[in-house]
Formats: sequence, structure tokens, C-alpha cells
Amino acid sequence: MDKVNLAEKFASFSERWSPKIVGTVDDYEVKLVKVEGDFVWHSHADADEMFLVVEGHLRMDFRDRQVEVGPGEMIVVPRGVEHKPFAAQECKMMLLERRGVANTGDGPANARTRAPERI
Amino acid sequence: MDKVNLAEKFASFSERWSPKIVGTVDDYEVKLVKVEGDFVWHSHADADEMFLVVEGHLRMDFRDRQVEVGPGEMIVVPRGVEHKPFAAQECKMMLLERRGVANTGDGPANARTRAPERI
Repeated sequence: MDKVNLAEKFASFSERWSPKIVGTVDDYEVKLVKVEGDFVWHSHADADEMFLVVEGHLRMDFRDRQVEVGPGEMIVVPRGVEHKPFAAQECKMMLLERRGVANTGDGPANARTRAPERI
Repeated sequence: MDKVNLAEKFASFSERWSPKIVGTVDDYEVKLVKVEGDFVWHSHADADEMFLVVEGHLRMDFRDRQVEVGPGEMIVVPRGVEHKPFAAQECKMMLLERRGVANTGDGPANARTRAPERI
């Protein structure tokens, strides 16, 4: 029941594209992540995924359009929808998704797959 | 798949203690709420609850202590733990909890019970 300071948690790691768990709500994980550059196209067949931008700018690419998401803005990617996060410069985000959802989506792990650690 | 701007959503309502749904992740609801003053003691036997302070200051009272939560800080109240949110001045928060969790906890509805609407 201790509080979590997001800025302190963000300051505690520097890796990109490697989500860190900062809280759990039932079977759902609240994660922080720093991203920069391009990610891989992927989807989650049975899991929605929330992205809340804390600092910086995210561009969420879908197959048919792009959505720019700035500080204080969030987007939910529905299950089954292919997406690819991109950030021209460092972007700090809070993520919310069910425990066990792989950051690179369904299918075999790849070079970008990361198992989230608790910080 | 549209983005949600938290400031715009906060500007669209003025009631206190009446959470508004701004997104869903599977069976979980992301809500915004404005609070000011005191709430009622309650607990949720089978649901954790996350509070993220966006603006202002929250004091989360537990039976044995109080936790001050400021902007950019979050706290998860575990299932079964009695708590009472308090804010001396207006505080804007994002909440996360499973769909159907009553804002006033288990037991019969009371004067502070609100069914969240989607905005």
C-alpha cells in the first residue's frame, strides 16, 4: 500500500522498449516504459492494451492510419488490431494490460521480446 | 482507437466523487474522477483499485495510517483493505478497477454510490 512516484521509477532505468511493472490490479499490470525509435508490428488476439503518454510524443501506427499521442493523452489498442508504436524522440509511457501479455504480441518471441520485471 | 485527452475529459464535467469512464481494457475500466472533501470508509472484498493523481493532492486514509499522494504518484489499494479517500482541495485522479466495482465498496448502495457513465 505504498505509493509509487512515477518520476522516481522512470529515473531508475534507462533501457528502451523494456516495460517495468510498478503496480498490479488483480491480474492486470501497470507498467512504465521508455521508447524511442521504431518497434515491430504485432497484435494481441485476446488482450486490449492501454498506452498513456507521460512525457514525449508517441505515434501509434495502425495498418490504415497513424495516431499522434501527446503528454496527458492515452489510447487503447483493442484486441486483435495490428499496431506499431513509434517515437521520434524518447517517450515515457504508462501501460496497462493483463499479466502475461507479451510486448511483441502473439506468436514466437523475437529480438524485441522482453519479460517485464518489477521495479 | 481514438486517443483520449485527459485534460479535455476533466474539463467536460464538474461533479465530485462521480467517476467517468474514459477507456476499457478487457473487463477493466479506466476512469477519471474529481474529488474534494471526505468520502466514506469502504472496501472491495475481491477487487484491487488503483488511484493515479493527475492534479492536486489525495490523502488515502487507512485504519492504521494515512498516505499522501501527489501529482504523478499512484497507489494501489489491495482487495479487502478499508480505505477512505480525502482531498482538502480539488484533486483530479485516474482510477483503474474491474467493471462493476462500486465506488462505495461492498454492501448496499448509499448516498455516495454512483454508477459510472462513459464520457
